[in-house]
This record gives sequence, structure tokens and C-alpha cells, in this order.
Amino acid sequence: MKRVVTFGEIMLRLSPSGHGRFVQADSFDVVYGGGEANVAVSLANYGLDTHFVTKVPDHEIGQCAVNSLRRYGVGTGFILRGGERLGIYFLEHGASQRPSKVIYDRAHSAISQVKPGEFHWHAILEGADWFHFTGITPALGKGPATVTLEAVQTAKELGVTVSADLNYRKKLWSPEEAKQVMSSLMPYVDVLVANEEDADKVFGITAGESCVTEGKLSEAGYQEVALQLVERFGFKKVAITLRESLSASVNNWSGLLYNTKKFFRSRKYEIQIVDRVGAGDSFAAGLIYGLVTGMPDGEALEFAAAASCLKHTILGDFNLVSTKEVQTLAAGDQSGRVQR
Amino acid sequence: MKRVVTFGEIMLRLSPSGHGRFVQADSFDVVYGGGEANVAVSLANYGLDTHFVTKVPDHEIGQCAVNSLRRYGVGTGFILRGGERLGIYFLEHGASQRPSKVIYDRAHSAISQVKPGEFHWHAILEGADWFHFTGITPALGKGPATVTLEAVQTAKELGVTVSADLNYRKKLWSPEEAKQVMSSLMPYVDVLVANEEDADKVFGITAGESCVTEGKLSEAGYQEVALQLVERFGFKKVAITLRESLSASVNNWSGLLYNTKKFFRSRKYEIQIVDRVGAGDSFAAGLIYGLVTGMPDGEALEFAAAASCLKHTILGDFNLVSTKEVQTLAAGDQSGRVQR
Amino acid sequence: MKRVVTFGEIMLRLSPSGHGRFVQADSFDVVYGGGEANVAVSLANYGLDTHFVTKVPDHEIGQCAVNSLRRYGVGTGFILRGGERLGIYFLEHGASQRPSKVIYDRAHSAISQVKPGEFHWHAILEGADWFHFTGITPALGKGPATVTLEAVQTAKELGVTVSADLNYRKKLWSPEEAKQVMSSLMPYVDVLVANEEDADKVFGITAGESCVTEGKLSEAGYQEVALQLVERFGFKKVAITLRESLSASVNNWSGLLYNTKKFFRSRKYEIQIVDRVGAGDSFAAGLIYGLVTGMPDGEALEFAAAASCLKHTILGDFNLVSTKEVQTLAAGDQSGRVQR
Amino acid sequence: MKRVVTFGEIMLRLSPSGHGRFVQADSFDVVYGGGEANVAVSLANYGLDTHFVTKVPDHEIGQCAVNSLRRYGVGTGFILRGGERLGIYFLEHGASQRPSKVIYDRAHSAISQVKPGEFHWHAILEGADWFHFTGITPALGKGPATVTLEAVQTAKELGVTVSADLNYRKKLWSPEEAKQVMSSLMPYVDVLVANEEDADKVFGITAGESCVTEGKLSEAGYQEVALQLVERFGFKKVAITLRESLSASVNNWSGLLYNTKKFFRSRKYEIQIVDRVGAGDSFAAGLIYGLVTGMPDGEALEFAAAASCLKHTILGDFNLVSTKEVQTLAAGDQSGRVQR
Amino acid sequence: MKRVVTFGEIMLRLSPSGHGRFVQADSFDVVYGGGEANVAVSLANYGLDTHFVTKVPDHEIGQCAVNSLRRYGVGTGFILRGGERLGIYFLEHGASQRPSKVIYDRAHSAISQVKPGEFHWHAILEGADWFHFTGITPALGKGPATVTLEAVQTAKELGVTVSADLNYRKKLWSPEEAKQVMSSLMPYVDVLVANEEDADKVFGITAGESCVTEGKLSEAGYQEVALQLVERFGFKKVAITLRESLSASVNNWSGLLYNTKKFFRSRKYEIQIVDRVGAGDSFAAGLIYGLVTGMPDGEALEFAAAASCLKHTILGDFNLVSTKEVQTLAAGDQSGRVQR
Amino acid sequence: MKRVVTFGEIMLRLSPSGHGRFVQADSFDVVYGGGEANVAVSLANYGLDTHFVTKVPDHEIGQCAVNSLRRYGVGTGFILRGGERLGIYFLEHGASQRPSKVIYDRAHSAISQVKPGEFHWHAILEGADWFHFTGITPALGKGPATVTLEAVQTAKELGVTVSADLNYRKKLWSPEEAKQVMSSLMPYVDVLVANEEDADKVFGITAGESCVTEGKLSEAGYQEVALQLVERFGFKKVAITLRESLSASVNNWSGLLYNTKKFFRSRKYEIQIVDRVGAGDSFAAGLIYGLVTGMPDGEALEFAAAASCLKHTILGDFNLVSTKEVQTLAAGDQSGRVQR
Repeated sequence: MKRVVTFGEIMLRLSPSGHGRFVQADSFDVVYGGGEANVAVSLANYGLDTHFVTKVPDHEIGQCAVNSLRRYGVGTGFILRGGERLGIYFLEHGASQRPSKVIYDRAHSAISQVKPGEFHWHAILEGADWFHFTGITPALGKGPATVTLEAVQTAKELGVTVSADLNYRKKLWSPEEAKQVMSSLMPYVDVLVANEEDADKVFGITAGESCVTEGKLSEAGYQEVALQLVERFGFKKVAITLRESLSASVNNWSGLLYNTKKFFRSRKYEIQIVDRVGAGDSFAAGLIYGLVTGMPDGEALEFAAAASCLKHTILGDFNLVSTKEVQTLAAGDQSGRVQR
Repeated sequence: MKRVVTFGEIMLRLSPSGHGRFVQADSFDVVYGGGEANVAVSLANYGLDTHFVTKVPDHEIGQCAVNSLRRYGVGTGFILRGGERLGIYFLEHGASQRPSKVIYDRAHSAISQVKPGEFHWHAILEGADWFHFTGITPALGKGPATVTLEAVQTAKELGVTVSADLNYRKKLWSPEEAKQVMSSLMPYVDVLVANEEDADKVFGITAGESCVTEGKLSEAGYQEVALQLVERFGFKKVAITLRESLSASVNNWSGLLYNTKKFFRSRKYEIQIVDRVGAGDSFAAGLIYGLVTGMPDGEALEFAAAASCLKHTILGDFNLVSTKEVQTLAAGDQSGRVQR
Repeated sequence: MKRVVTFGEIMLRLSPSGHGRFVQADSFDVVYGGGEANVAVSLANYGLDTHFVTKVPDHEIGQCAVNSLRRYGVGTGFILRGGERLGIYFLEHGASQRPSKVIYDRAHSAISQVKPGEFHWHAILEGADWFHFTGITPALGKGPATVTLEAVQTAKELGVTVSADLNYRKKLWSPEEAKQVMSSLMPYVDVLVANEEDADKVFGITAGESCVTEGKLSEAGYQEVALQLVERFGFKKVAITLRESLSASVNNWSGLLYNTKKFFRSRKYEIQIVDRVGAGDSFAAGLIYGLVTGMPDGEALEFAAAASCLKHTILGDFNLVSTKEVQTLAAGDQSGRVQR
Repeated sequence: MKRVVTFGEIMLRLSPSGHGRFVQADSFDVVYGGGEANVAVSLANYGLDTHFVTKVPDHEIGQCAVNSLRRYGVGTGFILRGGERLGIYFLEHGASQRPSKVIYDRAHSAISQVKPGEFHWHAILEGADWFHFTGITPALGKGPATVTLEAVQTAKELGVTVSADLNYRKKLWSPEEAKQVMSSLMPYVDVLVANEEDADKVFGITAGESCVTEGKLSEAGYQEVALQLVERFGFKKVAITLRESLSASVNNWSGLLYNTKKFFRSRKYEIQIVDRVGAGDSFAAGLIYGLVTGMPDGEALEFAAAASCLKHTILGDFNLVSTKEVQTLAAGDQSGRVQR
Repeated sequence: MKRVVTFGEIMLRLSPSGHGRFVQADSFDVVYGGGEANVAVSLANYGLDTHFVTKVPDHEIGQCAVNSLRRYGVGTGFILRGGERLGIYFLEHGASQRPSKVIYDRAHSAISQVKPGEFHWHAILEGADWFHFTGITPALGKGPATVTLEAVQTAKELGVTVSADLNYRKKLWSPEEAKQVMSSLMPYVDVLVANEEDADKVFGITAGESCVTEGKLSEAGYQEVALQLVERFGFKKVAITLRESLSASVNNWSGLLYNTKKFFRSRKYEIQIVDRVGAGDSFAAGLIYGLVTGMPDGEALEFAAAASCLKHTILGDFNLVSTKEVQTLAAGDQSGRVQR
Repeated sequence: MKRVVTFGEIMLRLSPSGHGRFVQADSFDVVYGGGEANVAVSLANYGLDTHFVTKVPDHEIGQCAVNSLRRYGVGTGFILRGGERLGIYFLEHGASQRPSKVIYDRAHSAISQVKPGEFHWHAILEGADWFHFTGITPALGKGPATVTLEAVQTAKELGVTVSADLNYRKKLWSPEEAKQVMSSLMPYVDVLVANEEDADKVFGITAGESCVTEGKLSEAGYQEVALQLVERFGFKKVAITLRESLSASVNNWSGLLYNTKKFFRSRKYEIQIVDRVGAGDSFAAGLIYGLVTGMPDGEALEFAAAASCLKHTILGDFNLVSTKEVQTLAAGDQSGRVQR
């Protein structure tokens, strides 16, 4: 069984149920999630030996976050306890022309305050096949950025494949900061995942004149972006997720993979959205699963695209699907017929 | 007032609410349902004198099933008490590309253990105008199969019209078993209802090369199926429901009726699905209502199609609509404008 | 800050949650709403100094209605206490081909029993910039009709702009009664809002042969209606909302404004509906906001259309959106992309 | 199987869940109930052939009330449809020193508007063994009072035993009105049920100086009340329920029966209250069950007291218990040990 | 109408519903509360012109906190917008031997970051009759401590009566810090409220050897505490709340008032607890209401004790009761009988 | 870290929420539990390396049971997949005089169908310090009984301490069957746990004339029972839980331990019950924790009693408390004061 380690923040997510607005809520649905935690849960669901590394406060709310991972089989033995608080984000689900809304309350979280040396990366990554992080983790502060660097350096030493999802968050840092920090991490990265805006925001690499708010995506543009990324940082593979937001209720979704030799474009899904948060993470997890288990690149991309298509239909950050469910969809059955 | 009797199993249905997955649920919505019970509730809602015959265990959960029928006016005086357990099925509602999922836990149910002679069919069917069962009931075991035969034989003796819905369930029996048992029951059946797969699975009668997972349905093919069914078993009428699964959220739905002389095809509905379980039963009930109350065949078919279109918008197995609501839709008003 | 006063009924609204039918409900979601109260909440949300005038019974349920307004910043200092009961309406949300259903239980409400002279309109309207009512209020009975007349007469004396939404309700009065009473009020009205049926029902002014249930709307016809309304009553502006009911789940929605010189037609929105009750009120409120804050007519219309588009995505009668959210949509961004 | 008919009003009951206050609620739990309907449900649960007679509006909310009765096996074939509205009451559950609160919104209900002659009492009471009503029904208005008189007169003609629960409601009528109307009905009554205040309020018959708010009850005083009632109206039996309100959470509860020869006092229960509404009705139903099935008076009283003790532990107006559960408690087992 | 101003923090409170533990929750009930906000809501409910002063972040969650106050009639016009986050606390309700548990996540809140001079105290307190704060506010940081000092100094200048509730929070500061800061504020305070531990923790003033965990309270000891407080700081009145924790489900509760001349002891209540958070605040509010409206001291104390007794029966921080409800209990009716 | 293994059945538990009756429920709260699973969760919460051994069907509902254990840190690596169904039990919470009610639907469960040799006990118990089972497991059928014998024999070989909880279930087997099977297992047991009825039902060993339904327990009688058990089977320790059922809402609870030399009696707790299912298991787990970590016997007993006291306050079968919480209560603090 392949062993994958991911590192980052897990937050308490609070949402009004259904399509309720924040100002209407007198209860919040509670789930826990965060980019790398979401990837870990996907991979544990697919049956890999998966570990999530983070730091959570030593109280019940921190424990709840840990339990949310254990429940789905993620290894939590490397999680540190301590620090001030668990990061929180508030999510309001949109509908039709009304966008979903996220309010972050993640500053001062335990993981954002970690110091270099707190994690024993050799012990953590020993025997691992893959290490994954996203651009959110180094954006949390200098401590996490340095610790991420420790992690990827150790991974390289130990021969662990490294993947990164750019995941630019404008509330956490400026493009300038992102560019500087991420550029120092990219040399250790084998597989890069990005969405249609990240490459531009973080590295100033653009997809030509495609205009995402009007729902038009130029495939050629994205290929160009992938090429530039490979040229600049020497990635072995670059994957890009392509979202066309027709409304808060319906999106088109697909992915693209460039392996320095060939471009692959996945099937495109028109999706009636239940919860689109974590879709990018589920794509990254699908891709990692495909690659770490030895699928051909095109198949891995289709697995990633199908997995993340399904994520849109599941409440919460976590993509709670099995490999069999993903494979059925990747094989082309979009009929949604009742499985008895 | 026409009197209709249906016979079969009623189960406890447990579902995560909304679009929740099984693994996320910490409560289950509770309803009760089953093919013939669903037909009974529809007919009681339409104002007929309707009775459902089954056996449930003599405890509160069995009583809940009975109460769910009484609540909507179904006669429950012929229901036996005893046996080990009430059948259960777990239902997870799908969305978009994610299919709904059913897990059956129905083995050893009270009704599956019934013995020949337990039901007094003469008393039950005396004065009835119509008797209905589905292919699920004989599939539950030898006892139920024999009891179904007792029922249809008695119905014939008493001049009660008999309808059957093929409703093939692969988890309950093999095609071979189904063919043998159902073939022995068909001679007593006046009106047959089937969906696009049943005739093939049970009798090996196929609809040509139409491919349902790709959403294409050949009308000619279904006419051919209906013809073959009539030829083989001498039914007075055969109705077929046609579902095109565009996704778990959107289906096209229509019906077809062959009365040995003429083919009727109903209006086709594009439906945004709330809950599609029981749609076939609501179609059968609509057809029975139309025929037993003397509607012309084409009108009965449109009533059935409209009734079952509406079922897709209602949570639970039961189709909780009035004749007036069905007639308004059957008359062509799909606008969904607020009724004040 | 502009000051707006609205006058009418606020009711307790009881709905089965989600797509549940009345006969399935063992709890009702509770909100409060009514045409003019809905307008008041919208305007308070937009930051205006807004007051709602009504009468509610002097018990906790009456207080709940008041609190629902205070919560969103509506001034409730002019609300009278007394009378027998709070009006109630039951709402069942439709889906797909199944229409939403409203059952009114509003007779004998406190506001329907008010007597001339109970409200001190001079004190209430002193310093106000705008007064709004709908055709529902005078339809509640002779008392409310007379009190509405008192209000508009006082408004005119004080130089307050008056708007009215025709809002014909067939359960409250006949077209003949409506025509007589509304005709006596129209001379005081500056800005009229109506939907595609109101002008016909109340004044016999028709939009040609357009057939709304088949989803066809003739723009020319509506322009003609607007022209006739201006000619007959001398309004400064007439706005008409245009709804195409494709189903209970999807509607097209737009608006039209005639300012005696020019016709404006808003962008048309295809909406996946969460709750369409109060959409007309949110349009009226958007228009009032635009006009009272000095937007050009075309811009005010787009603001009104965008505001009421968003209303369809919000549970309850109230349109809980900010000016910024409305402006973003009015500016053309329908992508529904997550706002982080 | 004994046949019992009860007559009166069934209302929609709306309550904040748990211990929520009205002003906090954004949903209401929905049940249906009313004095005589509650008695009918108890008796149907005990296995009698029970019918409830009333009038409800011809819409879904009226139908919900009917369904709530059918669900538990009450015959609803004599219920009329029509009239303006279904009566409503709002209930807030108290706790500790905070009392429960009821807000009535029952004026203008369908049943309150019935006219003499609307019910065919001969057909309804033919073959019945017992007829029951409470003082609430005649208090609803002249129509219901006259119709009640029709009912009890017919009952007498047909030899049906008649019971009445005084159930004085000060919001419905004055003591003077109550005295006049109830005095005209009492001659037809065989068995009277009352609580510690009713006899005083309705007939001016008092229980000495016992002070119920301080929780002291003089048994001798109640015996005296029972004696006076028998003397004045010639009842065959008089039963009185005795409640000591220690707080909204804990009450003592017992009953007393005088059969013109002997006084019986039931076991006294200290009850942790879940929902005390309908307790008096459940006592009356227990007594009727005991008497109509031939229990000795003392045993019938203990059955009534145990039944109504259990009612306090059940949400809603209806006492959803079986004869076996009542008998176990009446036999002395208050241990509440888990029944496996 | 008397005008009262309170100043402090309002937090988002998140609790598992019912008796659920944090680790079981997949939703949190949402209310908003905080010492001085709770006092403000009580006073607004009693009909006073009440204003709450704080700072909340300029996003929807901040707005929710404001709306929670407006809903109950508290003036929110002086609330500032800005800062990083809204303070949060997590509350788990205990039962029987299991204590309730509070986890604070309030650091870095907007109000904790306020700077001297941000609030215009002259404008805020102009025309006010009373100003109230608790020891929590200065404990939030230097900024809030200084701003509190500004407030009480301004109050003194304007002749506004000042009350303070010691409310020591060990998670916010040490006894030494508390003593220093609170000692500088006490000279401006007219009326002091404290519970059985505060005086000890903040000022080292002890109640003799009474041991609160064993449920014994020495009245003489508390009188001595009150005397010492008056001697040291010159308060006009000192009130102490006395809680005997029999378990998480049942507490005894009473209050004591010393007006420099006489000691008053309130009725003692044995309470079945629904939610005890905010009980001290509801006592302070009751006392302020009594004193500002001119009740004699003993009566004001009984009002305060009865008000806070009722608070224990209400979910959330706010005491949602009317003066009439408080007065009924203060007058001695603890029976909890249903109010119809 | 000590390693503990438990073996038995885990079931899906379905309960109406709050105090709802089965016949009222339209949803069921979902938890998972079973005697030995409950013990495992307690021990994992206390920080031990705990493993639960069972067999569950290979579908999502089986997976849910596994996830419920993983969530709280129980090792699930030895759980087998397969078989027909997961056992179910329905639980209705009682209140006051109304008992809680359990309906079992556990026949044919996967674990009840296991065959000898399916579990590799050497691998499972290698390195373990303690093995625990209850009398429920062998009662499930011959397979489970034989497999239990395999387990305890292996445990003995490997020097693993063995504990058993008699836990007699009359629905599963007769006293005769229980006696025969349990007698064959007892020679391998070091520590026996029983409640006040088990020893009588299983081995005919009685506690004198104490009458549990009247709430009287003779301590001497229980000592005699413990003595007899030790004499007959040579246990090293026998613990007995003593429950006095005052009502379904309030119980007294304590425990007794006999270590062949001395009798210990724990503190007695009067408990306001939230959920008493699993209390015996939480006592056994507390005792195991105390003994395996080396507490003196008296201390271990107090830990067990305090742990199981707290269990009564927690919904679900699992006792979700920490060692610190148990120790605080065991040390005598029953005050339930809020922990901030």
C-alpha cells in the first residue's frame, strides 16, 4: 500500500444549512477541512496509507478536527497539539446568480504559529511515497513557510515525490509575497496543480485572453501556461483545473495535464452543484492516486476529473467517494441511475 | 367507490437527509414504502377504497408501517401481525453525476416468511374491482410466490381485474427464477406494467438496440416489446415507462400504452428530481385509477404519466398528490406557477 | 439618509422545510412577511431610514413579527398593538412540474380591522421622502382601504413621493371591487409597479395576446399596457415585472420601465429558484431605492431587476442582500463564483 | 369491540421545539389536538372502534388534522369539510419556574361556525356505546352549543352512555355563559370529569379553602365537590383530576372517583414533565376505556390515572400509549427500567 | 423612558444542541452574547431605551451580532465596524454530574483591539441615566481597559449612574492584573455586582470559610464581603449572587443586596437548569431595572433574583422575559402552571 | 501504552430524538454501539491502544460502524468484512414513569454468522495486555460462542488478562443455554463484571431477597453473590454494578468490587439520565482502565463508578469522556459547575 503524507491547516467550517444566508442562521453545519487535509481524506478513502501533518490546539475543538480525519482513516499520529486556536472559516452556499461566500477567521491558528524544527520530517516522511502541500500553507506565515521548506527538502533527500497545488489566496498574502516564497519551494516539486487563475496570480504566467467570468476558456492558452510553468521550474507534470462558472448552481469542470511531452484534456462535466469547496483538492488527490498507483497519465487525469466532478455533489470539504465510484464515472456513465 | 387491493411488502426506509452520503449521516429520515404499498397510497389519495395486504412484525416498528398507510387512508384491516422483522432499505439520494444508492436489508422479513393459506383471499377480494401486485412480492421467497398465486387465482374466480408490475430486482432473484415464477403468474394478469429493462430481464424480450445509459430510447423498440408481451401472455393492456437518465438530478420521463389495438405515447416530462423512488409505482397507480374509473386508454396513460412526473418532486416512496393536481398537469400546465 | 415609509400587513408564514408537502410536515419553518414589510426590509438592508406601519396583536406572536423587522433594521415605532390575530399564510414549496401552493389564513387579522384615524399619518410621514403600499392593503377591508387613502392623501400634502404595487389577490376581492378602490387611490400615486397580470385584473388593461403559461411574453404588449396606465392615471413612471415560469424550479425574470418618455428593458435572468415569494416586492424595493437615491431610470431598473433576481435565491419573504451584491449582479457578473 | 364517538374541535398546534421561547423560534413543531380528539386517539390506541366528529376546512391543513387522527386509527368518516379556517394554538413549553404558555388563535374556525342540523347524529351514534364531549365545544359558539345538545339528546334516545369533561376555558366564555349552557347539557351526562378548578368556575361549586397554587389539596374538599355535583345533576359517576404544580418541570398528579356510593382515590404520581397538554383528556379516555370495557370503578380510576401519568411524558396532545403500558404502570411499576 | 448604555464585547456562541458533547456535534446552535450585551437585551425587553456599545468586524458575522441585538430592541447606533474578528466561545451543556464546558476563542477580537478615543463617550452618554460594564471588558486588553476608564469618567461628568459586575475571568487576566485595573475603575462605580468568587479573586476580599463546591454558603460571610467592598471603594450598593451547584442540572440561586444601611436577602430558587450562561448578567439587569425605575431596594433585589431565576430556563445568553413575567415570579408564584 | 482488545458485535442504533416515541418519529438519530465496542471506545478515549474485533457487511452501513470506532481512535484493522447484514436495534428514550424501550433486529448479522477459524487470534492478541468480551457475544450463536472460546484460550496461552461482563440478554438465549456456554468460558476469565440480575439469570446465583423494582438493594446480598462467583469459577476479581431505578429519568448508581480478600463499595451517584444505554460497558471499561494501568482496586472501582456515572449524561452507547473528567468526579466534585 502506497504511503502519502500531506501537510497544512485543517479548519473548522461553519455554514448555514441549505441555501441559508449568514444573517438568517441560527445554527451552523459543522465540518472540518483544509486543502491538504481534504487531499488526505480522499486518498485514505481510496485505500492508501495516508497521513496528515498539522498542529491543532489542545482542546476539544482541536480534537474534533483530528476525529474528522480519523473517521475516514487518515493517520493522525504526527499531529502536534498546542497553540492558541483552530482556524475557522464561515461558508455561505450560493444559488443561481448569488455566489457562495467565504469569511475567513483563520489568523493566529496553531498551525500558522509553528516554528521551524517542530516537526520531525525525517520520521514523518520515512517510507513515504508522496508528499503534498498547497500554496495555502506557506501563506499562513513565516513559520509555516519555513516548515514547508524543511518538509520538501527532507522529501527530496528521502526520494519522496512532491506535489503542490498553487492555490493562491489573496486574503493571506500579496502576489509579490506569494511569488517569492513559492519560487523557493518550486524546485522541490515534481507535480504541480493549479487552477485557471493561480499561475497568473503567483507567477505572472497568463493564459492569454481567455475570460473566465464570461465562461470562455481557451485551451491553447492553458497549454501555454503549462508549458511556461514547466520551463520555469522543471516540473515533471503540470495539471490545470478548468472551471466555467455558469452560475452558483451549475458549473462546467474539466482538467488538463501536461507531462512535458504531451497534453491531455479530460472529459468535461456539467455539474449541478451541491458543494464546490474542496473540488480542486479532490482533483489533486485523484491525480496523486492515479500517479502513485501507476496509472497512465491520461487515465490519471480522467480519474482526477471524475473524482472532482463527484466532489461537487458532496457536502463538506471532503470528497467521500470510493475508487469504484470514481472509475464508473471516469468510464463514462453519467446517467446517475439508482444503484440498487 | 371502486375498491382496489394490493399485496406485497412495506419496508422501513432510512435515508440521510438532503444530499448527504451514508458515511456522513448521524440521522436518517424515516418513511415507509414498497411497490404495492406505494400504489395503495396513491389510490387512497385519489379517493378509492383501497386496501393493502401484508404481514408486519407485532412491535412498534411494524405498527409505524401500518400507521404510515392509515395516515393516507389506506385500509389496513387485512394486515397480519407476526414474524421476525420488518424489511429495511437504506437510500442515499444522488445528485448530478453521483447516482442514488439503495442498500437492501430485507431478508427474513415477516412478509417473506408467509406460508400458503395465511391470507383469506376470498374475504379480502370479495367486492374488489382490482388487484395489484409487483414482481417483487413473488421474488421474496417461495411462500410469498405461492401466496401471490393464491391471490391472483382467487381474483380471477371473483372476476377482479389483475394488474402486475414486473419490477425485476436482481438482488432478490436471478432472471431464470424470475422467468419461471412470473410466467406462472402472468396468465392471471390483465394489465401489465414494466419499465425499459424488466421485460428483457424477466422474459428475455428486448427493445431492440436502444441504449438507455446514453439516454436514447427507440419508441419502435418499445412497441415491439409490448407486442411480444401481449402475444406471449395475452394481456389486455401493456404499459411501459420510459426513463432517460440525464443525471441523478434531471430525467426525462414518459409512458407508453398498448391495448392490443393501438399504441399511445404520453407527453414527455423533463423533471428536476427530488426523489425518484416509487415513480414506477405512481405510474401504475395512475394507470389503475384511470382504467378502473373508466377513462379512455389515452387519457389514463396521460394521467399515469402526469401522476408519476409529480412523484419525482415528492420525498418518500408515496406519491402524495390529488387527482386535481394530476389532472392539471396532464392537461398541459407545466408552468409551476404559485397556486394561491 | 433618505426616509421611506411603507404600510400594510405582515403575516406569519409557515412552510414545510425543503420540498416537503403540507401533508408530510411535522414542523413548519417560520418567517414573517408581507408585501410592504418585504419592501421595508429591502430598503433597510440598503441603508435607508425605513419604517413599516401596521397593527399587530399584543402577544408574543405579534411581537415576533415586529422583531423580524427590527432584526434587519426596519423602524417599528409606528406599529400599533391590538386586535384579534396575526394573519397567517401557509406556503408549500413546489419543484419542477409541481407548483408552490399558498393557503391564506389571514381573515380577521389586526391590520384588516383597523379603523380610520388610528394612524397618525402626519407624524408618520413627516420628513419622509417616499411612501409605498400595495394593492393588498386596501383589499384587506374597508378600514384598511380608507386608512390607505388617508395615508396617500397625507403623503401628497407633505410632498412625499408615492409608489404602489398593484398586486392583485383574487382571494381578497373581486376585480370589480379592486378596480373601484384602486382607482380612487391611483391619483395619488407617482410610481406604479405591476406584474404581467395585475393591470388586466384590476383595470382591464391587457397586454395583447401574450400567453404567460406558455412562457411567451410580447414586449410590445407590455409597453402598450404601460402606456395605457400612464394615460389613464398620470403616473410618472410605470414598471412591470415579467416572469416566464418554465417550471417551479426555473423561471426567467426581467423588468420593464416606462417613464412617460422612454421604455427601458432590463437584463433577463434565468433563475434556479430557492424561494420566489416576495420577488415582486424586492423589485419594487430595488426600484424605489434606485429612484429615491437618484439613479438614472435605466440604472434603477437594472438595480431592481438584479435585486429581485437575487431574491429568488433566498428563503423567506425578505430579500436579504446588500447594495453591493445587487450592483455586482446588475453590472453583469452572473458567474456565481465563490467570494472569498 | 366497543364503539365510542367524541365530538369537538381539532386544532393545529404550533410550538417552538424543546424549551425555546416564541420569540426565539424559527420553526414550530406541528401536531394536531383538541380535547375530544385527544380522547378519541387514546381510545383508538386502546383498540376501541373510535370515531371523532368535527368540521375542518376543505384544504390541506384541514386534511393534515384528519390524517393525524387516521394515523392512529381514529375513524374520520363523519368529519365534515368546509368553513373558513382550522383553529390554531401556539404552545411554548415552560421549564422550572417559567410556566408554559398558550396563545389561542381559534376564533372563526370551521367547527365554531357549524349550524344546527349539519351533523346526522342518528347515523353517527347508531350502534355506539359511548359519547364524549368537553365544555370546550359548547363554548365555541351558539352553533356548536346547539349541536352538542342535539348530540347528547340523540345519545340518550339511542341509549348511548354520555360523558363530559367540564374543561372551563376563560378565553372562550364567562362563568355565567358557561353555567347556563353547561347546565342545559348536564342532564344528559352520565359520567362527569373535571379538574380542581372547573366545578368552581362553571357551577360555583368549590372545594373548600384548598389553595392549588401553593400545592396543597384537601381531599375532603374534593369529595364534597363531587357530592354536590352528583346532587345537583344526578351523574352516575364523577371523576376529578388533582394536579399539584411544583414547577413547570415537576407535578404531582392523581385522580378521584365518586360513584354515588363510594370514593376512590388513585395512586399519586410525581412526574417529570415532557408535555402536560392533554393530560386531562388522557385521564378521561382512560376512565372511559375502563368503564366501557367493564373494569370495576377503582380499577378504571387507576387505569385513568396511570394513563394520564404517562401522557405527561409524551410530546403532543395525543397520549400514544398501549393498554399494556398503562396496565404495567397501574400495577405499580414506576421504575422506568429499560424494556428490552 | 429611562436610557441605559452598556459597553463590552459580544461574541458568537457555538454549542452542540441539547446535551451533545463537542466531539459529537455536526452542527452548532448559534446565538450571540456577552456580559454587557446580555444586560442590554434584558433592559430593552423591560422597555427601557437601551444602547449597547462595542466594535464588530465589518462582515456578515459581525452584522449577525448586531442583528441579534436589534431584534430585541437594543439600540446599535453607536457600534463601530472594523477590526479583525468577532470573538467566539464554544459552549457544551452539561447534565447531572457532568459540568458545562466553555472554550474561549476570543483573542484578537475587534473590541479587544480598540484604541483610546475611538468611542465618542460624550455623545454616547448624553442623556443617559445609567452606564454598565463588567470586569470582562477591561480584561480584554489595554485598549478596552483605557476606553472603559474614558467611559466611566465621562459618565461621572455627566451625572450618569455607573454599575459594574466584577465578573472575574481567569483565562483573560491574573488576579494581580485584575486588581490593579479594576481598582482604578471602582471609584467611578455606584453599584457593584459580584458573585461568590469575584471579590476574592479580584480584590482578595473573602467570604470566610464557606465552601461553594460543597454547596454550603454562609450568609454572614457574604455580608462581610459586601461590607468590605463598600468600605474599600465607597459603593452606594453592593449586590452578590449566590449559587449552590447541586449538579449541572439543578442549582439553588439567590441574591443579596447591601445598601450601606441594610442587608436584603432574596427568595431562594431551586432551579432545573436549561441554560445557566448569562444568569449573572440577568441579575445585574434586573437590579438596574429595579433601581433606575425607582423600586425600593428590597423589591429591586427580588426583581433581580426572579429575573435571573427565569434566565436559567432560557436557551442562549439573553434573558428573554418581560417585566410582567418577572413580577409574577417575584410575587411568589413558582407553580409553573400553564398560562392560557 | 497498554494494549486492549475487545470482541463482539457493533450494531446500528436508531432512536427517535429527544423523548419521542417510535410511532411519532419521522427521523431516527443514528449512532453505533454494542457492549464490547463501547468498552473499546472508552479505553481509546482514555488513551490506550485499543482494538475492536468483529465482522461487518461489506457495504456503506458496515463502513459507518467502522468509522464510528475510528473516529474515537479505536483500532479497526482486525475487523472482517462480509456477511449479510449489520445488526440493528431501535431505542426509544423513556421519561419519568415511562420506560425506555429497545427493539432488537440483530438476527442474521455478519458477526452472528462467523465460523470458527475466521479470526487469527494469535496475531490479534500478540502483545495485548487485556482481552474483554461480554455474554452477548457467545449468545449470538454457535459460531460466535466457539470463536469466543478460541479467543479466550489464545489469550490464556499468550498471558493476556481476560475480563468478561455477564450481560445476560433474554431475547438471545435461555438461562439454560447461557449457563452451559458461559460456564465453559468462565475458567479463562480473570475479572468478571455483572449487574444485579446477571448472576442469577446465568448461574442461578442470587442476591438474597433484595427487590430491584422497588429500589432496595441489600449490600450483603451482593457480597454473597460475589463470593459465590469467586468460589465457583476462581475469578481474581468480581465487580457488580448496582442500579436503583427511581424512574426513567433518575437512577441511583454505584459499584462493588471483591478481590477475593476485600470488598469495596463505590460512592453512590444520583443521576439525572440523558442516556443510560452502555452504562454497564462504561463501568467495565473504567475498571479495565484502572486495573490495567495499575490503580489500587478501590481506586479502580471509583474510577469505574465515576466513568459510568458520566456515561448516563451522554447520548449514544459510547462514553465520550476523558480520564481527567472521570478523575475529577471520582475525586468528589459533583457540583457540575461550568468549566471555563
